[in-house]
Amino acid sequence: MDITKFAIPEIIFGRGSLNYAGQCALRLGAKKVFLVSDAGIEEAGWVQQLMDILKKEGVEWVYYSGVTSNPRDIEVEEGAKIYLENGADVIIAIGGGSPMDTAKGIAIIASNGGKIRDYEGANRVKRPLPPMMLITTTAGSGSDISQFCIITDVQRAVKMSIITRTLVPNISIIDPLILRTKSRTLIIQSAVDALAHAIEAYVSTIASPFTEMQSLKAIDLIVRYLPCAVESRSLDCLEKLSIAAVSASMAFSNASLGAEHALAHSLGGYFDMRHGVVHPILLTAVMRFNLENAETKLADIGRVILNRKVGLPRDTALAGIEKLDEFFASFKVTQRLREEIGEEEKYLLKPICKMAVNDACNLTNPRPASWQELLKICEEVW
Amino acid sequence: MDITKFAIPEIIFGRGSLNYAGQCALRLGAKKVFLVSDAGIEEAGWVQQLMDILKKEGVEWVYYSGVTSNPRDIEVEEGAKIYLENGADVIIAIGGGSPMDTAKGIAIIASNGGKIRDYEGANRVKRPLPPMMLITTTAGSGSDISQFCIITDVQRAVKMSIITRTLVPNISIIDPLILRTKSRTLIIQSAVDALAHAIEAYVSTIASPFTEMQSLKAIDLIVRYLPCAVESRSLDCLEKLSIAAVSASMAFSNASLGAEHALAHSLGGYFDMRHGVVHPILLTAVMRFNLENAETKLADIGRVILNRKVGLPRDTALAGIEKLDEFFASFKVTQRLREEIGEEEKYLLKPICKMAVNDACNLTNPRPASWQELLKICEEVW
Repeated sequence: MDITKFAIPEIIFGRGSLNYAGQCALRLGAKKVFLVSDAGIEEAGWVQQLMDILKKEGVEWVYYSGVTSNPRDIEVEEGAKIYLENGADVIIAIGGGSPMDTAKGIAIIASNGGKIRDYEGANRVKRPLPPMMLITTTAGSGSDISQFCIITDVQRAVKMSIITRTLVPNISIIDPLILRTKSRTLIIQSAVDALAHAIEAYVSTIASPFTEMQSLKAIDLIVRYLPCAVESRSLDCLEKLSIAAVSASMAFSNASLGAEHALAHSLGGYFDMRHGVVHPILLTAVMRFNLENAETKLADIGRVILNRKVGLPRDTALAGIEKLDEFFASFKVTQRLREEIGEEEKYLLKPICKMAVNDACNLTNPRPASWQELLKICEEVW
Repeated sequence: MDITKFAIPEIIFGRGSLNYAGQCALRLGAKKVFLVSDAGIEEAGWVQQLMDILKKEGVEWVYYSGVTSNPRDIEVEEGAKIYLENGADVIIAIGGGSPMDTAKGIAIIASNGGKIRDYEGANRVKRPLPPMMLITTTAGSGSDISQFCIITDVQRAVKMSIITRTLVPNISIIDPLILRTKSRTLIIQSAVDALAHAIEAYVSTIASPFTEMQSLKAIDLIVRYLPCAVESRSLDCLEKLSIAAVSASMAFSNASLGAEHALAHSLGGYFDMRHGVVHPILLTAVMRFNLENAETKLADIGRVILNRKVGLPRDTALAGIEKLDEFFASFKVTQRLREEIGEEEKYLLKPICKMAVNDACNLTNPRPASWQELLKICEEVW
C-alpha cells in the first residue's frame, strides 16, 4: 500500500447536538463569528435557533446569506470582503453543500487573498484558514467533513474543485433533528449524492483500508434506509442516512472521487443543475465503464447492495449495478440526461466532457477516461 | 442514539511515512521539538533516523529518553521541567505506548502546570496543549490516535487513566516498516492489546456507529493476520495489524473501554506487568461476565471471529469467546493469573479490584461491575 492520509474534523453527532454550537464556537476562540447560511435554512428557523445558541454564550456574529445553490465565485469574494471588514475571527456555516462551500471559499480568500479561481485543483491553498465549524442540514454533500470545496466560476461556467487538507473544518456538528424539515426530493438527492461519494471513493485509485470500510458502511445504510426515510420520515431512518453521509464523506474526502463526479461538476457548472439530480443518471453508467478496471471492488459493492454474492465477481458487480438502477427508479427520479437538458443544448456535451477530464476528481477514476469516453457515457444515458 | 463525539488525529499511514515527520513538524510550527523516546527504540536506530529527518528540515530538538515501561508520574514531571527550561514548542514521541503516554503527560504539565495526578479521570485538562505528533513503533497501544494517557502514580501504585479530547495528537504517523524490528512477543502483546481495545469499545455503553465499524474491522484483521505476522513477519501481515491497531484506537478513543482494561490498569499499577500480558488472561472472562448485558453485540463479535453464525445469538457469542481462548492458546501466552503473580501476592487482588472499580474505563462496561465481581473474575482466571 502507498502512503495514505486520513483527516477528518472533530465530529459531534446526534439529536440535539446543534446545542453544542455555542460552546464549540468558544472553544475555537470565537469573539465575532462570520455566520453563513441561506434563505431556505433561515425560513426553516435554523438560523435563528443557531443565533440564539451563540447569544447564550455571549458570542457575536455577522450574518451573511448571499448564497445561492451552486455557489459562485462572486458570492465567495463578496463574503470574504465582509468577513475582513467586520473583523470576524471564526467561520460558521449552517446549511447544505452550498452555504458550507461558500463558507470554505470565504475562509480561503479571507486568509489567502486573491480570487477563488487561483486555488482551483489540489493543494494550492498555502496559508492557514480561520477556524471553521460547519453544521450540515442535509445528509449528503459531506462538505462539513471533507477537504473539498466546489465553487462555480461564472465566467467559464465551470464548477471548480478546490481540494486541500486545510479545508477540513475544525468541528462538524451533525444533528439529525434538522433533517426533519427537509423535503422528500432533497432527502433523495442528498442520499444519492452520498451514495455516489461512497461508491466513487471505494473504487478510487487512492482508496485505503480506512476509507474503504467507510464507503461500504455508507452504501449499506443508504440502500437499506433511504426507502423508509422517504416513506415514513422516521427519525431513526433519517439518522441512519446521516450516519451514512458522514461515513461516505470520510471516505471521499480522503480517497477522492472519480469520473462521475467530474462529469457532475461540469454539467452543474453549465446548467446550474442540482448536484443530486445528476447521480441517478450517470452513476451506474460510470460503474459499467469502470468494470474492466475495478471488477473486484465493484463486486464488493454488489455484495453489499444485494446482500449476497451472485456467481463470479463480475456477475455480482453487474447484478449490483442493475439493482442500483432499479433502486433509483423506485424513487421515480430522472435517469435520462435529456430530461434535464434540452435537445437543443445537446451539442454542449462535447465542451462539457472536455472540461470534465480536467476536473481533479477524474484523476482518481479507476479506469482512465478521455473526453471522448466521457461523451460516450453521456450519450448512453441521453 | 445519544449525542456522540468522534475525534481522531490527522493520520499519515504507510511504508516510509516516517519521512514525512520533518514537514509535519514544520506544519505544526516547530522551531524546537521536544523529542521523547526510550532506549529500545534508540537501539533499533529509529531515534537517529527521526533526528536526521528533522535535521533535514532545519528543525532543532531536545531529546528526552527518561521513559520506562509503564511510565511514572515522576518521569512526566521531570520531562515537563526540561521542556520548559529549553523553550520547546512542539512535542514529538517515537515509540510504543510508554514514550507516547509520557509525551502526553509532559504536554499536560508543561501547559497546565501542577502534578499529573491532578488530571486523573475524564476532562480535567483545561488549557490547550502544545502541538503533538506521535509516531508509533507498535501496532497496539493506540496512544498515537487516542485521547487516553496512562501514567503510573508511584505512591499509590496505580495506573491513572487521563482522558480528554485535547490529548488527541495533531498528527499520527504510522509506518509499518518500523514494526519489522519488533520481537515476536511484542507483536503478539500489541495485537492482543488492540484486540482488547476493539472488543471492549464495541460493547461499551457509549459505542456509536462510527466506533462500532472500526471495532469490527480491527477484530477481523487481528484474528486473520496475527498468525501470519508472527510466523512469517511478512510486511503485508504486519501492515494489516497496523491498520487494525489504528481502527481499534479510533474506536476505543471515542467509545472508551470496559472492566477488562480497568482491571488491567490496576494490575499493571501494582505489579508493573506489561499491559499486553494481561489481556489473554482476562479478556474472555470479562466477555463471559458481560454476556447477560451485551449478548447481541458479543454475537456480532463472535460472527466476525468465527466468520459465521452458530444457532442463537448467545451460541454465536459463546462460540466466539471459546474460539478466542483457543486463539490466545495458539500463541502459547499465559492465560492464568497465577503465572504472573506469585501465590504469596494473591491477597493483593482485593485492593486491586477495589481500585479497578474506580478506573474511568469501568464506567462504560456494559454490565456494571462491583469490586466483588471483578475479584470473582480474577479468581476464575487464577
